[in-house]
Amino acid sequence: MQIGLVGLGKMGYNLALNLMDHGHQVIANDVNKDQVQGIAEEGATPAYSLDELVNQLETPRTVWVMVPAGHVTEQVVKDLGEVLGEGDRIIDGGNSNYKESLRLSEHLQEKGIYFFDCGTSGGTDGARHGANYMIGGEEKEFRKIETLFEDTAVENGYLYTGKNGSGHFLKMVHNGIEYGMMQAIAEGFEILEKSPFDYDYEAVSKVWNNGSVIRSWLIELMQNAFSKDGDLESIRGVMNSSGEGKWTVESAIEFEMAAPVIAMSLMMRYRSQEDDTFSGKVVAALRNEFGGHSVVKKD
Amino acid sequence: MQIGLVGLGKMGYNLALNLMDHGHQVIANDVNKDQVQGIAEEGATPAYSLDELVNQLETPRTVWVMVPAGHVTEQVVKDLGEVLGEGDRIIDGGNSNYKESLRLSEHLQEKGIYFFDCGTSGGTDGARHGANYMIGGEEKEFRKIETLFEDTAVENGYLYTGKNGSGHFLKMVHNGIEYGMMQAIAEGFEILEKSPFDYDYEAVSKVWNNGSVIRSWLIELMQNAFSKDGDLESIRGVMNSSGEGKWTVESAIEFEMAAPVIAMSLMMRYRSQEDDTFSGKVVAALRNEFGGHSVVKKD
Repeated sequence: MQIGLVGLGKMGYNLALNLMDHGHQVIANDVNKDQVQGIAEEGATPAYSLDELVNQLETPRTVWVMVPAGHVTEQVVKDLGEVLGEGDRIIDGGNSNYKESLRLSEHLQEKGIYFFDCGTSGGTDGARHGANYMIGGEEKEFRKIETLFEDTAVENGYLYTGKNGSGHFLKMVHNGIEYGMMQAIAEGFEILEKSPFDYDYEAVSKVWNNGSVIRSWLIELMQNAFSKDGDLESIRGVMNSSGEGKWTVESAIEFEMAAPVIAMSLMMRYRSQEDDTFSGKVVAALRNEFGGHSVVKKD
Repeated sequence: MQIGLVGLGKMGYNLALNLMDHGHQVIANDVNKDQVQGIAEEGATPAYSLDELVNQLETPRTVWVMVPAGHVTEQVVKDLGEVLGEGDRIIDGGNSNYKESLRLSEHLQEKGIYFFDCGTSGGTDGARHGANYMIGGEEKEFRKIETLFEDTAVENGYLYTGKNGSGHFLKMVHNGIEYGMMQAIAEGFEILEKSPFDYDYEAVSKVWNNGSVIRSWLIELMQNAFSKDGDLESIRGVMNSSGEGKWTVESAIEFEMAAPVIAMSLMMRYRSQEDDTFSGKVVAALRNEFGGHSVVKKD
């Protein structure tokens, strides 16, 4: 089918190629004209503005938005809301906060525009060769554009999750689980590193990926990483995060439930971003006050 | 090759069948005579005592022990140490504490008997159709019996890990990681359960297993579990544990390193085993003392 695509970054560009591989006609837009020209050379129809994009689409129009979550997504979706009309559809394929998706869907509903919050997993390689989607929105309307997801996902790699918000919420929880799994794997390897034994971590990852209980794509990725740098000597252990882990913990707190492992995984990321901590100074100062224990002085 | 097998429980019985599938001659012993008769009907040579087992093996003998970790393993290995001789080999395929394996290997070394601490993963189905092994011990001697592991593991599913203790230590850390991964997955599903959305957990597990970052055998197992009981209504959330998670945390503490997610996963298991806690009573009592906050009275 005919599809408008806004955002030709790493995810959007690969998605455009993937869509065209499956015979879809892509009208592509990005703030960066070079990206638009690049994808045009691959067979997409270029659109150098949202107006141009919308004018080249037959009604009812479908526009897939693949831009950074947060302010940029909100702006692009609202701008599209101004130029699209009743019966048109917007898919937000980014890592948006589900509450923002709920607000946008309500905003668009007033204009008769359908909104789909689509969590996308699998990375850039997935976007190119088979992604994973979790999609919330109006079911009857979803079925009309289902082929877009079916064609560009891996087999069984997409799910209609229910009403608006449920797609991005599910993707958020997916990422929260990912934080916990990654931290557990990380702690395990550190215990091996501090042990009296001498392990080949690439070989360990490989054996764990063949028949063990913890076999997983994440351990496969560790096998790749250790094959390039056996002790990860070239990397500092600074763990950044984007937002979905934080929102998962915020949701657990909102629901007043215990999710200590996901919360701790998030906080270990924050801890890794600091060279020193004020809490560490407080404990050192207290030990010094009550027991005369020596403190480590600043250089 | 010819191999003695002590222990015909769920793991040992399946391992015996697996070994025989690959042309190995199994001399099998168990405290339960019915199990010995059962495996004899499948083609193994029965041995109703350790003496009988040892007498039917040509030197150098190899005996694979698949009995419960702890006291039983220690007793069986020590008893075997009395009847085996110099140059013979014992494989402990159970979930033994690596420190116990180090002690046993030293004890047997005095007698000239080789000891291999072999962590086994993959469950009973793995034991039957392709297990996963992490094996510590004397390398030159290991190479002589390597075929036993190669034949009964999945492809690339065994690893010689180094000196004695390193096999069981690696299996222990594997299980520690497993605790963290399981708790992260569990918290994620609970957040879904408490959310304003209505998810089909079997469908969620299925989509997560196809192209997402958290795809893993554990999520595949959840897909199976949810296919049988969509909301796990038939199960109480009591999380038991055997010992490897505890030993992993003990190791982290011994090495004075932070492994908060694995530790928290272990403690959430302990918490799940209690209906009420003394710490909960303490906090309730304190809130009542300083703020007059009401307490929930015991029935």
